[in-house]
Amino acid sequence: MSALKSFASDNNSGAHPAIMEAMIKANEGFLKSYGDDEISIHTDEVFKEYFGSQASIHYVTTGTAANVLGLRTVTQTYNSVLCAAQAHINNDECGAPEAFGGIKLVPIPSEDGKLTPGAIAPYLGHVGFVHASQPKVISITQPTELGKLYTLKEIEDLVEFAHDRDLLLHMDGARIANACAALDCSFFDMTTALDVDFISFGGTKNGCLMGEAVIFLKPNIGEGFKYLRKQAMQLVSKMRFVSAQLERYLADDLWLENARHANAMAKRLAEKAGAIDGVTIKGSVDCNAMFASIPPEATEILHEKYYFYVWDEHDHTVRWMTSWATTEAMVDEFVADIEKAIKAI
Amino acid sequence: MSALKSFASDNNSGAHPAIMEAMIKANEGFLKSYGDDEISIHTDEVFKEYFGSQASIHYVTTGTAANVLGLRTVTQTYNSVLCAAQAHINNDECGAPEAFGGIKLVPIPSEDGKLTPGAIAPYLGHVGFVHASQPKVISITQPTELGKLYTLKEIEDLVEFAHDRDLLLHMDGARIANACAALDCSFFDMTTALDVDFISFGGTKNGCLMGEAVIFLKPNIGEGFKYLRKQAMQLVSKMRFVSAQLERYLADDLWLENARHANAMAKRLAEKAGAIDGVTIKGSVDCNAMFASIPPEATEILHEKYYFYVWDEHDHTVRWMTSWATTEAMVDEFVADIEKAIKAI
Amino acid sequence: MSALKSFASDNNSGAHPAIMEAMIKANEGFLKSYGDDEISIHTDEVFKEYFGSQASIHYVTTGTAANVLGLRTVTQTYNSVLCAAQAHINNDECGAPEAFGGIKLVPIPSEDGKLTPGAIAPYLGHVGFVHASQPKVISITQPTELGKLYTLKEIEDLVEFAHDRDLLLHMDGARIANACAALDCSFFDMTTALDVDFISFGGTKNGCLMGEAVIFLKPNIGEGFKYLRKQAMQLVSKMRFVSAQLERYLADDLWLENARHANAMAKRLAEKAGAIDGVTIKGSVDCNAMFASIPPEATEILHEKYYFYVWDEHDHTVRWMTSWATTEAMVDEFVADIEKAIKAI
Amino acid sequence: MSALKSFASDNNSGAHPAIMEAMIKANEGFLKSYGDDEISIHTDEVFKEYFGSQASIHYVTTGTAANVLGLRTVTQTYNSVLCAAQAHINNDECGAPEAFGGIKLVPIPSEDGKLTPGAIAPYLGHVGFVHASQPKVISITQPTELGKLYTLKEIEDLVEFAHDRDLLLHMDGARIANACAALDCSFFDMTTALDVDFISFGGTKNGCLMGEAVIFLKPNIGEGFKYLRKQAMQLVSKMRFVSAQLERYLADDLWLENARHANAMAKRLAEKAGAIDGVTIKGSVDCNAMFASIPPEATEILHEKYYFYVWDEHDHTVRWMTSWATTEAMVDEFVADIEKAIKAI
Repeated sequence: MSALKSFASDNNSGAHPAIMEAMIKANEGFLKSYGDDEISIHTDEVFKEYFGSQASIHYVTTGTAANVLGLRTVTQTYNSVLCAAQAHINNDECGAPEAFGGIKLVPIPSEDGKLTPGAIAPYLGHVGFVHASQPKVISITQPTELGKLYTLKEIEDLVEFAHDRDLLLHMDGARIANACAALDCSFFDMTTALDVDFISFGGTKNGCLMGEAVIFLKPNIGEGFKYLRKQAMQLVSKMRFVSAQLERYLADDLWLENARHANAMAKRLAEKAGAIDGVTIKGSVDCNAMFASIPPEATEILHEKYYFYVWDEHDHTVRWMTSWATTEAMVDEFVADIEKAIKAI
Repeated sequence: MSALKSFASDNNSGAHPAIMEAMIKANEGFLKSYGDDEISIHTDEVFKEYFGSQASIHYVTTGTAANVLGLRTVTQTYNSVLCAAQAHINNDECGAPEAFGGIKLVPIPSEDGKLTPGAIAPYLGHVGFVHASQPKVISITQPTELGKLYTLKEIEDLVEFAHDRDLLLHMDGARIANACAALDCSFFDMTTALDVDFISFGGTKNGCLMGEAVIFLKPNIGEGFKYLRKQAMQLVSKMRFVSAQLERYLADDLWLENARHANAMAKRLAEKAGAIDGVTIKGSVDCNAMFASIPPEATEILHEKYYFYVWDEHDHTVRWMTSWATTEAMVDEFVADIEKAIKAI
Repeated sequence: MSALKSFASDNNSGAHPAIMEAMIKANEGFLKSYGDDEISIHTDEVFKEYFGSQASIHYVTTGTAANVLGLRTVTQTYNSVLCAAQAHINNDECGAPEAFGGIKLVPIPSEDGKLTPGAIAPYLGHVGFVHASQPKVISITQPTELGKLYTLKEIEDLVEFAHDRDLLLHMDGARIANACAALDCSFFDMTTALDVDFISFGGTKNGCLMGEAVIFLKPNIGEGFKYLRKQAMQLVSKMRFVSAQLERYLADDLWLENARHANAMAKRLAEKAGAIDGVTIKGSVDCNAMFASIPPEATEILHEKYYFYVWDEHDHTVRWMTSWATTEAMVDEFVADIEKAIKAI
Repeated sequence: MSALKSFASDNNSGAHPAIMEAMIKANEGFLKSYGDDEISIHTDEVFKEYFGSQASIHYVTTGTAANVLGLRTVTQTYNSVLCAAQAHINNDECGAPEAFGGIKLVPIPSEDGKLTPGAIAPYLGHVGFVHASQPKVISITQPTELGKLYTLKEIEDLVEFAHDRDLLLHMDGARIANACAALDCSFFDMTTALDVDFISFGGTKNGCLMGEAVIFLKPNIGEGFKYLRKQAMQLVSKMRFVSAQLERYLADDLWLENARHANAMAKRLAEKAGAIDGVTIKGSVDCNAMFASIPPEATEILHEKYYFYVWDEHDHTVRWMTSWATTEAMVDEFVADIEKAIKAI
């Protein structure tokens, strides 16, 4: 149907065929609504195998919903959430945390979207001081919006820093599978084992249609979530169609294969494109995104055939992103066209 | 997979096979995200054929989202929305209009969930009085939460009443297809032609997976909607998977056939069950829902095999609902079992 | 300065001279801000003598603030507050509870603004049902917006009804002094002794300039209030000027004398005016308000000289209200003018 | 009554005696409530003489209310407000803009709390991009939270920068009188003449009890304010007691004399204390605040007798602030005690 050639976002790809099959299968017969169906109940169990038996799992349809609802549930309006200035919750959700939750975000400058205890410390503010929002959550994105990874040790240090100050550690895992694939660790290793408190679990970008979840990893947080999800307009009536995606996604290592593939395609693109004169890949390519410097005129030529974003207009940095659906042939064709474009200018 | 026998809600059925096929087809290749894809753009055009060229159509994943976002977009926090006390927005959305929009709802007592100008008038309050919420919208549900229909004339009168007072008329059309099928009129006849201002268009209950829309029927309302949808966590990234459902739903009269079928199954059930001694069908059965009085002991027996709600515990009224997926055989089996249950007590 | 002759509201009177003197005295020297001053701290102690040592007292500048902040502190957005349809929080605060707190109000029909367990019961809704706002507070106004009083026994019954259902009992005491004066009981008798949970304490209408308070009567409620008051823009910097009013108001029975006087003036007016042919005082005059039926033409004549409200335009009911500042002479002059007006038509 | 010796905040002083007298005078007789009284109406006229006939003036009781309500009125929840990281709205209002208005604040790093077009430009974000909060207001504080002044030219440049981008320019004038006194200009010169859009006008810190106002300087902004003020719990019933303060404050140059005096006391303190070995006054002293570096041990000694804040614990910077009530004798005594304290360590 579509001839779009996209390196713009992993969101531009469709769903993995196996997940579509699972949807078809989930469509059989009548089932209870609002998550009381067998598929949703079983999917909960599958998630617990990955994240531990104390986890509570709640399905939503967008990553924004996962982030905002998770944060909203654990905060009062007088709390603040500390995050990197580049965080999706700060930059890319049109003020949803503020509008839906009255949450104050405290954006912290960062080079690559990563936070460190040292960077956070000066922004904690006056605890107990009535004039100041009271910090409650440190939110990190893994991998970051700039495609970088926290090591497990770095996450562990942030968790310790947070817990020492009675703060919770939230992980925006919109691309959590890509992070696990890159770090060669399990979901558990990267979250529950490190004492992370709650996460946004993303499936959509890595092969689902719209399958996201808020996961509270501990029994004592998340009170009231069920009502808040309803208020957030995210209590899907035919919930089986969300959970069925994730049930299949988590089976047979589909999530892992998709993520490994996407990461590998990014590496291939970075290596091949990076070797072209006139192209500079900026920093490391940790997962499935890269930021490159190319001549603006080349972008102009490439945009006739390809869809991707100019990330920073000032120095003409472009973002290229691969997905589970990106093929080697697509990468190679793109690389050839980049080379051609640069030669043509 | 599931052996659930449900007359509880049209939400318990799956999606129509034709819509699942459309999903599979929509899955081909890469497409732009967030509604900028060809499928969503085409579906907009299809909707305009039904609702008029001035309509603007916005896809969301739940009926709550359609209602709350539509109302939120046209109101300020100091506005009020007048609705029947039984309205879904008042009773079944866990306070989402208040929580997300700061909207004050003014519930108006009603026998069957229907409003009339005479019933609304005493609740309008003091226009311009700083201590009072300022009325902005009259919201009706068609068919109502109690399964009743407004005639086109009744809607027209409410619109006129509203516009005379500078109010907007909103129609919660979670089951709008059932209403059109029952009234043998088009979507246009029941909305745009009557000068209705905006509607919640429901597809999920009548054969979609999760396909709903906010439709502003006039060009001068709906400002800011796109940002508010994002803030409401309803801007689905792979939007094609919502619009593709509705595109197919609106093709080849699928929406109409499904609705006619559901309505016919309700009529069949009402006639057959109503003929049983000990069962009283309350009032008319206008669409696909009915309220019946049966002995509590019969409910107990039936609940071993069937899923349906006791609507009012005081007088033991039960609600039975049919859907596009309810078959004649299911109805007949249920009727036979009702009869058996009553005899057994 | 002003020649306004008002029976419109106790809000039209100024402040009692003794309270102005206290303000002057409070103005001496430098004091800590935001309630950390000696006057505020001492006023807290005075309040505790009246309401019990477990009470926590928080000063605000308007009755709306007292109501909304109190309710906001004990609710989540998915909670509801049950109140009489005529309640100030439902009718006269321009949707502030919904806008600031996302609170769902459940208005309950009532003849005189009073609630009873029997009237509340059908409105409690489905506890634990995710689609329904979860009831958390029953809010009553003492005296009601229609000038009626709950007996202590009626309050006690409502508290028991509330506590049996894990609900809190809130009393809007905008005119609490008038109620105590009329019932000849102490603040303690009418609140703490009956196990009421929290109240809005009004001083403004009975002789203060702007002196109101939220009082939590038990140690385990009110968490987070101090931050919420700041967010509600009600943390006055020179707080001494609010607390000093209330400190004086509570000394030497000033609150009681003012309230008794206002009530007595209402009784005088009701008796004398009620004796005039053509004037009907509706129902009992429990405190300092009355509702009367007079010929519309008389109102027209009286409005040339006097300020008061037509409460119900349909049957031309007027509201007359007295205050601490209303004198016998004012009442008698008004009565004479009512008589003259009626004769003139 | 109080023997507090404070250089902590101008909030620690009481009200000017002339303003107390005006309160006493305003207390005579009955007046209409909620701002419909003669005093409030006249005070509006006085304000218009200062700010131009197109100004609309709205009284509130706290500076937080003035800021939050002004910003709330001109924004939608999907708008953002750009401000210095040190801005009171960002740091000292416990998240009220986010909680009451759903407003996203974009804090911009600044040395002295001042913004420049160049500093703002990179933070404007993507206009029209649905994922990003849409900038609507640039908010500056004059003088800044760090006691610095914008020149009229700097304000003019910011207004032009704002208007070129369809943004509004808001001035937080909590200490606007001190700024005018220091710049030797009128209110009009510093606001209306420079095309500023709306301001928070503060009287409390400079001699009022609690007298603040939101002033919209142009006729086409501020729609809905009256309802929003009511919702914000700031519609004081006996409004005369707020407006009477400001009426007197603006008469006979009282505002100017008070501000000049406070500024002069700060200058005196800065010069005398700055001359002491071991004391460094940081940067210029533009109005009535200064930041000084002194030995921590000296602070410890001084705190036995004086009340002031340690602003930055890392480098032990203290803030000293004077007010209309600070006398030369107080300054001189404080200077002597500083000297003694430093010698004693």
